[in-house]
Amino acid sequence: MEHITSIRVRYKETDQMGVVYHGNYFTWFDIGRTDFLRNTMDISNKALEEKGVLLPVIEGHCKYIKPAKYDDEIIIKTELVKLKGVRLEFQYKLFRKEDNILIAEGYTTHAFVDKELTPFNFKKNYKEMWEILQKQVSAV
Amino acid sequence: MEHITSIRVRYKETDQMGVVYHGNYFTWFDIGRTDFLRNTMDISNKALEEKGVLLPVIEGHCKYIKPAKYDDEIIIKTELVKLKGVRLEFQYKLFRKEDNILIAEGYTTHAFVDKELTPFNFKKNYKEMWEILQKQVSAV
Amino acid sequence: MEHITSIRVRYKETDQMGVVYHGNYFTWFDIGRTDFLRNTMDISNKALEEKGVLLPVIEGHCKYIKPAKYDDEIIIKTELVKLKGVRLEFQYKLFRKEDNILIAEGYTTHAFVDKELTPFNFKKNYKEMWEILQKQVSAV
Amino acid sequence: MEHITSIRVRYKETDQMGVVYHGNYFTWFDIGRTDFLRNTMDISNKALEEKGVLLPVIEGHCKYIKPAKYDDEIIIKTELVKLKGVRLEFQYKLFRKEDNILIAEGYTTHAFVDKELTPFNFKKNYKEMWEILQKQVSAV
Repeated sequence: MEHITSIRVRYKETDQMGVVYHGNYFTWFDIGRTDFLRNTMDISNKALEEKGVLLPVIEGHCKYIKPAKYDDEIIIKTELVKLKGVRLEFQYKLFRKEDNILIAEGYTTHAFVDKELTPFNFKKNYKEMWEILQKQVSAV
Repeated sequence: MEHITSIRVRYKETDQMGVVYHGNYFTWFDIGRTDFLRNTMDISNKALEEKGVLLPVIEGHCKYIKPAKYDDEIIIKTELVKLKGVRLEFQYKLFRKEDNILIAEGYTTHAFVDKELTPFNFKKNYKEMWEILQKQVSAV
Repeated sequence: MEHITSIRVRYKETDQMGVVYHGNYFTWFDIGRTDFLRNTMDISNKALEEKGVLLPVIEGHCKYIKPAKYDDEIIIKTELVKLKGVRLEFQYKLFRKEDNILIAEGYTTHAFVDKELTPFNFKKNYKEMWEILQKQVSAV
Repeated sequence: MEHITSIRVRYKETDQMGVVYHGNYFTWFDIGRTDFLRNTMDISNKALEEKGVLLPVIEGHCKYIKPAKYDDEIIIKTELVKLKGVRLEFQYKLFRKEDNILIAEGYTTHAFVDKELTPFNFKKNYKEMWEILQKQVSAV
């Protein structure tokens, strides 16, 4: 299931090329992912971390199609595309709201780790939450 | 040919997981790339931009292997692995200086564009510079 | 007249102290200021820049009272407190939405400059816009 | 006693005005401060944090005199100007290396807090370290 959120480009996010600095798209993916979790589980990423479930990125990828500019409204479409016991993968598509043009797409893969950053099996340890997530996985 | 540079992790670059925020690795790749160009061409990326040659990222990828932490010294190894007339690709490996452990690797692909962000053929328009770069391409 | 906007704290904005990195508050002040201009003038900061009116910060100050944390909703209250021909000053107050606690306050002073970053007299050159702004100045 | 360090401006630090985004100067102040501590005490800020001594910013100020640009080398001069039992203040001056022009100056005030961010008296609890710091205080 696709989750939709939006942001407005900040001045800070631009660089001297007059467009958004490429590294910042990963911050937007993060916002999409946080909102995805808030809306599909009855627990926020923040609450999840407080329980000791952290989701560090172990792989990230982005393809830049059109530049994003200052003050643009950007639509972030987030999908959970893989869920294993020990990791999960999100896919993102970014659209410029004004003309609905796809400006970038990418993915991030995450491990489930505890507060000491040690990987653990989320499926085994949090079976109920894992099953809620499992219902959200998109067929790709 | 591999180019080596290094940075020290800034407090600003950490997040509440106690490690460097993943998006920041692309800033380090950028530093590696800037130093690569400064050292292999007799023109800096800054001077290149002033001439009207910009190198926006059109694809970026990073695999995170070990976390980087505040105050760590990080070695950035940068290689130019592909050079076409209209684009080029860099590969990066990041090592923690203390124990020489590989902590991340990735790549960025770039287009040659002018100040209006219109792609152009760098090989045709800047033949001499293109040939200097061409000598730097690593066999992968 | 006070303008109100809000943001939600991003993971990227936290540091290893578990709170928002202090430098990021200036990005939030910037968001407050952009929204202030969008709502009080019939021209956005972006459109203003396209006309050749830029507002670089020449002085910035922030007093940090309580930490902001990941996922907090933050209310930004922005006021224009001084307007001269060649510069202006905004004041900001940040509140945590959850309990309406003041977490920080600060100000930024700006010059009116053109695209070459040369200061000019906004009052003389854009009298009509200056007068609209003038009506927004708060008594402090 | 003044401590000197330097950085080179990153592409990421620029904005669409073609200069460094103002909020980033606080990151540079931070680098100056970290280096100051590393060189004047026989303990790094990182090690200090591991002991449970954190130095959050409670007030920050910057006056922007000349813009910093991409690839500029910036000299950061840091001084400790006040030291009380529970707080301390640093002053910073930033110079463009190329022509030794002062481009910005500012200060940050810090509290001594523990890992729960509770203020404590550093002078009483770490008398020896406090006295080392005390010898570094500049007359202003």
